[in-house]
Amino acid sequence: MRNLEVCLSPELIKQYGVENKIVVVVDILRATSCMVTAFAHGVKSIIPVGSLEECEQYRNKGCIAAAERDGKIAKGFDIGNSPFSFMEKTMKGKTIALTTTNGTIAIQRCESAAEVIIGSFLNRTIIGNYLINQTNDVLILCAGWKGKMNLEDTIFAGALVEDLKNHFYFENDSAFAAQTLYGCSKKDLFKFVTGNSSHYKRLKNLNLDKDIRFCLQNDIYPVIPIMKEGALMKMKMESIKIDQ
Amino acid sequence: MRNLEVCLSPELIKQYGVENKIVVVVDILRATSCMVTAFAHGVKSIIPVGSLEECEQYRNKGCIAAAERDGKIAKGFDIGNSPFSFMEKTMKGKTIALTTTNGTIAIQRCESAAEVIIGSFLNRTIIGNYLINQTNDVLILCAGWKGKMNLEDTIFAGALVEDLKNHFYFENDSAFAAQTLYGCSKKDLFKFVTGNSSHYKRLKNLNLDKDIRFCLQNDIYPVIPIMKEGALMKMKMESIKIDQ
Repeated sequence: MRNLEVCLSPELIKQYGVENKIVVVVDILRATSCMVTAFAHGVKSIIPVGSLEECEQYRNKGCIAAAERDGKIAKGFDIGNSPFSFMEKTMKGKTIALTTTNGTIAIQRCESAAEVIIGSFLNRTIIGNYLINQTNDVLILCAGWKGKMNLEDTIFAGALVEDLKNHFYFENDSAFAAQTLYGCSKKDLFKFVTGNSSHYKRLKNLNLDKDIRFCLQNDIYPVIPIMKEGALMKMKMESIKIDQ
Repeated sequence: MRNLEVCLSPELIKQYGVENKIVVVVDILRATSCMVTAFAHGVKSIIPVGSLEECEQYRNKGCIAAAERDGKIAKGFDIGNSPFSFMEKTMKGKTIALTTTNGTIAIQRCESAAEVIIGSFLNRTIIGNYLINQTNDVLILCAGWKGKMNLEDTIFAGALVEDLKNHFYFENDSAFAAQTLYGCSKKDLFKFVTGNSSHYKRLKNLNLDKDIRFCLQNDIYPVIPIMKEGALMKMKMESIKIDQ
């Protein structure tokens, strides 16, 4: 049976290792939710970049530049990290350079993985079904908040562990902890997250309740973003071998 | 109100910082449980050391040398990391050099803290009462397992958060996650830990159930080990200002 692990922060990635693993990167509020939304709305590719300067350079090359820092649109940019920004018709067929506080950093830590895919509640079931039908071990990497674990990414990791529990072997404590926390939260995800997440408290001050409710919806977009040569692409449906 | 944080792994300590904080180091199975047990049985001091070589050197200087690696007594040493070893009459008044897989490393990461004390279920309530009556912020540092989070340390951190919740401000997600996991486990700690902890699975193979049951007992030893100039000492009772 294949192994399923949960890494609660990009700062712990060395303890798990990514070699020969499929890594599912998770930044529920809001980077990976945005990525899934973007591909569901016809975006061609997304280039995750680390710095605002690099993001700016991609804009000069004709990309759409989206940049978020500390929950807000970074100064000098038109688009930040709201999923609603990525639904615009103007996005269709475009390449987006995206930099965020946590999510894009997490992706950059996975360079030597067998495969990097993007997970969120929005594409939860298709991600799970895809993973069941692969052959590599799986690591769910939570982006967290500035190196610390956060609640919403951990809960999503737990949801995925719950979905996959009959198909994988897992004996890492963080996977069990995440699964338990998901069990405590699933009756009312919004209440659990907004009542307790420190990141929510930050976003609440920025009036982002609409974004948060959006990001906590299950399975509205059956798409899988996957890293290919430095950019995220939408996985072709024929690659998603799903036998249910 | 003072701040209470939980750090789930020594590898994340930089994200929290220890300056001006009282750090409670936690390694339930079994380093910090052993330390509390040792002081309750008259040990004079414990020197936490990083390497087996250093531990050996302290033995040559007349200390008792205790060394554990991967749950077992390290090769060439007489004592490892079982709390029962520290109850022997021969320990009374002695100085012990101790090296363990996780706990002693966690202690060494806290050099610049205002104060480092040792927590376990065995001294849970006195630790909580002591913290309530201090003035510094508090960081609970879980030793984890080789840099990863583990269940038993996280659950103890959650128990302490539960005990202190009316006296501290906490808005870090790991404190809430730990508290929630403790809530799920408290009806039967032994069952929760042994059913799910990967470290338990390691220790089970070593026939350490007796040790584990011992380490999960609440409040059998009202002592507080505290770091003073590189060694742990038993805090004097008059230093523990407790008004209840």
